[in-house]
Amino acid sequence: VETYLLSVGTALPGPALDNTALAALFQVGDAWEEWVNRFIGTRTRHLSVDLDSGEVTAWLADLGTEAGGRALTAAALDPAEVDLIILATSSPDQLMPATVNVIADRLGIDGVPTFQLQSGCSGAVQALDVARQMLLTGRHHRALVIGGDVTAKQYDLTVDPARIPQADMVNAVLFGDGAGAAVLSTAPRAGSPVVREVRVRLAGRGRAPGHQVDWFGVADRASGRPGTSEDYHAVEALVPVLAGELLKELLADLDWKAADLDYLLPPQLSGRMTAEIVRSLAVPDTVEVSCVRDTGNTGNALPFFQLERLLPAMTPGQRAVAVAIESSKWIKSGFAVEQPTR
Amino acid sequence: VETYLLSVGTALPGPALDNTALAALFQVGDAWEEWVNRFIGTRTRHLSVDLDSGEVTAWLADLGTEAGGRALTAAALDPAEVDLIILATSSPDQLMPATVNVIADRLGIDGVPTFQLQSGCSGAVQALDVARQMLLTGRHHRALVIGGDVTAKQYDLTVDPARIPQADMVNAVLFGDGAGAAVLSTAPRAGSPVVREVRVRLAGRGRAPGHQVDWFGVADRASGRPGTSEDYHAVEALVPVLAGELLKELLADLDWKAADLDYLLPPQLSGRMTAEIVRSLAVPDTVEVSCVRDTGNTGNALPFFQLERLLPAMTPGQRAVAVAIESSKWIKSGFAVEQPTR
Repeated sequence: VETYLLSVGTALPGPALDNTALAALFQVGDAWEEWVNRFIGTRTRHLSVDLDSGEVTAWLADLGTEAGGRALTAAALDPAEVDLIILATSSPDQLMPATVNVIADRLGIDGVPTFQLQSGCSGAVQALDVARQMLLTGRHHRALVIGGDVTAKQYDLTVDPARIPQADMVNAVLFGDGAGAAVLSTAPRAGSPVVREVRVRLAGRGRAPGHQVDWFGVADRASGRPGTSEDYHAVEALVPVLAGELLKELLADLDWKAADLDYLLPPQLSGRMTAEIVRSLAVPDTVEVSCVRDTGNTGNALPFFQLERLLPAMTPGQRAVAVAIESSKWIKSGFAVEQPTR
Repeated sequence: VETYLLSVGTALPGPALDNTALAALFQVGDAWEEWVNRFIGTRTRHLSVDLDSGEVTAWLADLGTEAGGRALTAAALDPAEVDLIILATSSPDQLMPATVNVIADRLGIDGVPTFQLQSGCSGAVQALDVARQMLLTGRHHRALVIGGDVTAKQYDLTVDPARIPQADMVNAVLFGDGAGAAVLSTAPRAGSPVVREVRVRLAGRGRAPGHQVDWFGVADRASGRPGTSEDYHAVEALVPVLAGELLKELLADLDWKAADLDYLLPPQLSGRMTAEIVRSLAVPDTVEVSCVRDTGNTGNALPFFQLERLLPAMTPGQRAVAVAIESSKWIKSGFAVEQPTR
């Protein structure tokens, strides 16, 4: 049994928001914008909240349904043919019901196993991993895999711009909202690449978290603690190392050599960090497939945006690897796809 | 390949809290307590929050580590031998990092795939399902499966007891905190039952959620909306129906007859509801394995408490089925274990 990647669909909320718009929101000037362009290298992102009105313009269920529907349409698959659905996210709309089940209902999918993974930047890879293993046992045949994140609940727009901490401004630059989806099938289809391997490994032992996202219940919502915190020094230091380890392990799993690769889908933390990681991975003669300058880091959605750019480009016999590093508690992950020779 | 259930471990926070203590907290009298005893039938539960001080006495990571450690000890397994870890919960300590990775770190597990399922009363079954499928592909050999829930974040103890809505009082009666864990292995061990089948099916199409648990971000924490809501009329009406459907489907999967069963692990909503469901399932000559009168509904932990009671009782050739119904967006789930004949 092989798992074929039949299609990809994505969804982004609202219009592209550029650094000029963020500079205006934060009431900072051209120098800040220039700094973002130069030292972060992320130019636009899309947000699920309207920054003027504070209104939520898209929930995860909205974006997930849109992306999932597009992937099904692109695969010419009826929702009733899907026999497994998996969503990965760090930002579910509610804790219960799991958002995957709301999306399933809207897409007209029922009577199948559904799973929702609580995950960060390795989430799309985790969801591909679970789906692929379940196809490989032969129990399932057509899986809809979705990843997405929406940060609307973490944007407190009532705060005086002068009091927004620098860290929150950096987060607003780095992260974007969106969802992506893919259809995996055990039945080959002309032009569809095979998912040759998926690898997910915790690398967190004894390491403090690099990225934390909190939530509040009714008991602690009055607390003033922040919703998110990051250790960007640790991220800058560790992500390239883990990316290098994972790429090596993945190639060893596959018995592939770096020289066999045609495409590289690198981690997408920011434009600049991505460029640095691509340099450090030193995979010669591969085409880089990146989206972060346009979308920002969309977390669980991001590899789907990369796959959306990859799929039309692949020709028979070509190989691609993707690497995603989650800085929460440090997870290294990646996958490999190959377009069969005719 | 078969998947063997080597061991179970559980953890409960604090002392057992009886209905007299809840009646005192809510400043209601003997009549209320008598009503709970008679019409709900749940006598005690354990909570991860001290009701006097409001202090959180246990986080999910604490209980999950305790239960997981006990399951490993009972299986005489070193943490380094675990090659897969899966946690199911509706109440993660944070959104990121996923609590499963904190537990892994504390147990000394690293370098393996980790998954955290966002789920309710079907979560333990979902986690068993994912683990079993991953063992069946041959990629993994020893999985630690954990389920747990802690409700501390949803207990607002600053509220005037006279103003606590009736629904919140009912929730406090019905739900308890706890964690459970099991070790699954592809290597047979004397006295360990085989997990013959795991079945999870969404049954939510067109149905409104029966149970919702919300969370707040920094943007909406000032909102006055409640943290949880339930539709107990829908739960009472639908859970027995879905339990009956699932049991029938599970037996058909296995080609077993109801008369072949020795033990029944029924859904554990409350003492009274459980008794009604057992009657409606009409499985003759089975021993009921329940824990809800002592623990309350511990959500993702609950089937592990049932398994903890089941395992020492099973003798060679005996069969047991468990049924768990999640009312969030309506998921029917269950599993079957069989003690091999010598």
